[in-house]
Amino acid sequence: MPLRFPSSITIVDVAARDGIQSFPRAVDTATKVALVDRLSETGLPVIEVTGFAHPRVIPNLADAEEVCARITRKPGVVYRGLVPNARGAERGIKTELDELLGLITVSAAYNKKNQNMTLEQGVEEAIKTFRVVEMSGKRWVMALGMSLWCPYEGKIPQERVLSILGQFRNAGMRRFYLAGSLGMEDPRHVSELFGRALDAYPDIEIGFHVHNLAGSGLANVLAAIDAGAAFVEGAICGVGGGIAMPHTIASVGNLATEDIVHMLNEMGIETGVDTAEIAAAARDCAKLLGIEAGSHTAHVGTRADVMEGAKKAPREHPV
Amino acid sequence: MPLRFPSSITIVDVAARDGIQSFPRAVDTATKVALVDRLSETGLPVIEVTGFAHPRVIPNLADAEEVCARITRKPGVVYRGLVPNARGAERGIKTELDELLGLITVSAAYNKKNQNMTLEQGVEEAIKTFRVVEMSGKRWVMALGMSLWCPYEGKIPQERVLSILGQFRNAGMRRFYLAGSLGMEDPRHVSELFGRALDAYPDIEIGFHVHNLAGSGLANVLAAIDAGAAFVEGAICGVGGGIAMPHTIASVGNLATEDIVHMLNEMGIETGVDTAEIAAAARDCAKLLGIEAGSHTAHVGTRADVMEGAKKAPREHPV
Repeated sequence: MPLRFPSSITIVDVAARDGIQSFPRAVDTATKVALVDRLSETGLPVIEVTGFAHPRVIPNLADAEEVCARITRKPGVVYRGLVPNARGAERGIKTELDELLGLITVSAAYNKKNQNMTLEQGVEEAIKTFRVVEMSGKRWVMALGMSLWCPYEGKIPQERVLSILGQFRNAGMRRFYLAGSLGMEDPRHVSELFGRALDAYPDIEIGFHVHNLAGSGLANVLAAIDAGAAFVEGAICGVGGGIAMPHTIASVGNLATEDIVHMLNEMGIETGVDTAEIAAAARDCAKLLGIEAGSHTAHVGTRADVMEGAKKAPREHPV
Repeated sequence: MPLRFPSSITIVDVAARDGIQSFPRAVDTATKVALVDRLSETGLPVIEVTGFAHPRVIPNLADAEEVCARITRKPGVVYRGLVPNARGAERGIKTELDELLGLITVSAAYNKKNQNMTLEQGVEEAIKTFRVVEMSGKRWVMALGMSLWCPYEGKIPQERVLSILGQFRNAGMRRFYLAGSLGMEDPRHVSELFGRALDAYPDIEIGFHVHNLAGSGLANVLAAIDAGAAFVEGAICGVGGGIAMPHTIASVGNLATEDIVHMLNEMGIETGVDTAEIAAAARDCAKLLGIEAGSHTAHVGTRADVMEGAKKAPREHPV
């Protein structure tokens, strides 16, 4: 049986939160606002704008409320913010954002090391956070970070992910994403986990949040949509994310939104975003952030661009 | 139905031919020999060593016979050379190589522009070339370049590829590869073409030769092996290939062998090549050629390397 392709897929850009939170320099509010506003022009249906973490923990997101107040909201676009705990949710529900994102990291070792929490405590806090958002009437999506692989723990048991999904589902949640947070995940694991999760809970919606350290990001996207993922999350220019490694390359963060859009468009899967437009946005956002875009599409452009380039190229001998 | 994964797959490295032929500088014979010898140590089952084109057409392969004579042959490894025409085959059969590779480019526009040949003339020349090799007793594989997308013609009609495969099959050929020669191909097209070709001709073996301009190379590999591709061809460090574009990025050539091996190994598909070993080989080959490796795996290493790195990393906040 051939691969299964949906007729359309929802693309989410998380650069302004996941990219900025781990950006190597401080980014000023005006730049963040300009980044979100540029993304709003592309046709992207969901844009993650910021996160409501404690400013001491993530200094680059300290101006979350101000960013939310200053962006130009484009009708039809869902603007989202991360609320890592109930206190963050209390802040998030007071903004104009449409959707709030809860977060748990499925790795027990990571929770212990970074949050000094057990997984059970994490689940409990996430449900408390969800209750705050539920009361506010805003849309809710629950993120399961490191659902596949963790640099402290290695491969995450699929049963643990299914169990946590089940607990959240019992609490009333219906929309989730599973994150390949490191970008070291492989498509067989992605295929199996999405297949099992959607078999176990056919009434939930699961997206895929994808990083690209090993370069297999787009293969993982293919596996996820074949298995029924409802949405895919990247970051323009591939900014952000990714635990700092002693010997990393430039684009080890999130998978670049423009490369996801490009591939899906060429596959005839409706994204609502034009490839040339997202490539142009990536080039603009790279300038805004003072970085080189960590993607292929920002540099190479569309098939039409390559055909234009080939007209000027000398005789060559590819096989 | 989940993705189909074979239990093993054959990996071919073509850097010493496809990479060197379009290398931006002259490469001396000793470097080419060292490149092949380093690859021979990795466990790769098939290594493309050189090509027998006219030295005026591809100056960097002018020393083809000398390279063949000077490499250290490792028992069990298949050493291959490209013979683009019958004259090349006459040279190739006199060497110690085990396998010779015929080549046609499926794009009519490309044939016209670069070879001043019609497709029919190309098919005829390939069959003549095959006859020379057949008589010699060496193994034969037939390459169909640009079987999916061409920068002069755009998308290549699948019927044309099927028809050419059929003509070669009627002439007695049974082993082929289809090339995504530009790296602008998409996995749906790859899936459909491999599916149709193997349905139409169940007695042939088809590999996938893959470039990575749009970054979808590994997704295309996943689609090809799901559809039944028997082998996959990359180039160490991603060197070579790719029509020169006015605004290219570093790694627009062949898909890096080390990234292919890494992904397949993590999927539990037997490649016979160790990830750490191919990553080390990539770093050595980059030094040999004086380039930066155009891959993720050469820089990031294995999952074990990332776990080691994480131990030293500061507290981080990935999702």
